[in-house]
Amino acid sequence: MRVVITGGAGFLGSRLARKILERGTLIGADGAQHVVRELVLFDMAPAAGFNDPRVTVVTGDVADAPTVRALIGNNVHSVFHLAAIVSGQAEAEFDLGMRINFDATRHLLEAMRALPHPARLVFSSSLAVFGAAGPDDVPDPVRDDTALTPLSSYGAEKAMGELLVNDYSRKGFVDGRALRLPTVTVRPGKPNAAASSFASGIIREPLNGVDGVVPVGPDTRMWVISPRGVIDSLLIGHEVDGKAFGSFRAVSVPGMQVRVGDMADALRRVAGPEVAARVKWQFEPRIDRIVCTWPSNFDCRKGLALGMKAGTSFDDNIREYIADEKPAAAA
Amino acid sequence: MRVVITGGAGFLGSRLARKILERGTLIGADGAQHVVRELVLFDMAPAAGFNDPRVTVVTGDVADAPTVRALIGNNVHSVFHLAAIVSGQAEAEFDLGMRINFDATRHLLEAMRALPHPARLVFSSSLAVFGAAGPDDVPDPVRDDTALTPLSSYGAEKAMGELLVNDYSRKGFVDGRALRLPTVTVRPGKPNAAASSFASGIIREPLNGVDGVVPVGPDTRMWVISPRGVIDSLLIGHEVDGKAFGSFRAVSVPGMQVRVGDMADALRRVAGPEVAARVKWQFEPRIDRIVCTWPSNFDCRKGLALGMKAGTSFDDNIREYIADEKPAAAA
Repeated sequence: MRVVITGGAGFLGSRLARKILERGTLIGADGAQHVVRELVLFDMAPAAGFNDPRVTVVTGDVADAPTVRALIGNNVHSVFHLAAIVSGQAEAEFDLGMRINFDATRHLLEAMRALPHPARLVFSSSLAVFGAAGPDDVPDPVRDDTALTPLSSYGAEKAMGELLVNDYSRKGFVDGRALRLPTVTVRPGKPNAAASSFASGIIREPLNGVDGVVPVGPDTRMWVISPRGVIDSLLIGHEVDGKAFGSFRAVSVPGMQVRVGDMADALRRVAGPEVAARVKWQFEPRIDRIVCTWPSNFDCRKGLALGMKAGTSFDDNIREYIADEKPAAAA
Repeated sequence: MRVVITGGAGFLGSRLARKILERGTLIGADGAQHVVRELVLFDMAPAAGFNDPRVTVVTGDVADAPTVRALIGNNVHSVFHLAAIVSGQAEAEFDLGMRINFDATRHLLEAMRALPHPARLVFSSSLAVFGAAGPDDVPDPVRDDTALTPLSSYGAEKAMGELLVNDYSRKGFVDGRALRLPTVTVRPGKPNAAASSFASGIIREPLNGVDGVVPVGPDTRMWVISPRGVIDSLLIGHEVDGKAFGSFRAVSVPGMQVRVGDMADALRRVAGPEVAARVKWQFEPRIDRIVCTWPSNFDCRKGLALGMKAGTSFDDNIREYIADEKPAAAA
């Protein structure tokens, strides 16, 4: 089978690619296991670090319809659609966010609809499709069937994408599933324009000997998942039968609620007080406002029933980062 | 002020236009009453029957972006966006439905965003944004904050339109409000491709001396509103302050739950057994399947708080039709 990952040069896309290459097989839309013969990593910049004959690296603009049609061609069996403009940038650049987070999804669905066979699509949605929890807003915990009342353009674009994925699946054009991802932490690399970027920076930067700046208050709560956890859930979301999603093809991926102050405490426990002292609290209202619109507590019974697993301690997220990204420090 | 009605040649658009001309004023986005100096009726075919110097009739394709930009220009203050492809046709012709029910809404929002002043937009959404009520589906009654899990392309397109209207309003690009309309009955005129078309035909055709064919069972329940009721609610939806909508710019318009068998009984009470005998039950699975995906019982506290009113007896809907459309019969 031929598999495409959009955002394939990104952190999650590359991690997912390595895991798929390691497994070697995926379940197709026919419900049977198939050998992955080609894995196409699509992104703006070329995906690097792959030395595997099954990997094809393609660059292009995911919001350009002819590019997407050429990418899907007539022989793709599965797509993981991870390409996106992150929340902070989508809020600042509305048109760009609509183009990449919504129009690209629609182009992809149209290209897949034209395939001679139904193909599976895993669409990376987000907890940002929900508004803030509160007496007049979404319930606490947020359920899989809580209304999508996003308070950011990123959330609105992902919510519209879910509706498209659901309707294209209902019509039999694709076999789609939308996964509402928690905030992924600890990510390696550099800070980005995601409002949630600090959720990795608070751990990563101090471990790398530099200050980690936190733009929200210590009592802010977040709904998080580790990189290994999110990759496992993306694969489960792909492998399960579409019928398991029930009447709407979306699921909140199980995560773990964590208070930002407790993230700093976990860093102190795992890496010591000297490292934890590099966490710097510098409140930024623009970031805090976006993060506070995301609920942090979910009833994930649908995801758990699909076989996805929730984390239990943020200490484990830090240890996973050290093991996966700083093996020398772990040794 | 300058007001635009899309779908202005249709039944609801024309009724709304007459009501606005009669009132003579509307509240603008500045919160003040303004005299309506121009009322633009936009549709595919020219709106007929208006002999008022304030009315301008414009024809064009609502899904053509340059046409919509020219329609809005730089001096429109309010838009009632009623143009749509009805449910049955949107399900049969997916691309046409996306174009008219979604792309047109986006073009309109973009044209309004370019205005030098914020303008009000009333977007006609539908109860079809919700899936069917049931143990695994939407709650009974459906609340204003029930998740949008449409089971038709029409519903998916309207749900995406709501998300756009909400986000454009949150960003301050427009002052929008989405009104989820119940099934409007009794409509005059001819049957159309709406799956709900029979809900008017069951009354209208027998009153006009011909058979009214009902493609669903007598125990099917519907959520309905009369033409006068829906026009009143559209105007209330326009006049209220946007803040009254709370954290999401959509509201379920109050209606009334009615069993289809009871609609036939109401016809017998109001017009006699001879007329009611012209109701013919001819089950059509394709129509029944769509209608049964619409919930028929709503908790409309938000709409009632905005001042919208629910009907209490379907007999009144029939009497309203006779008074408004068959005055000779009523006399």
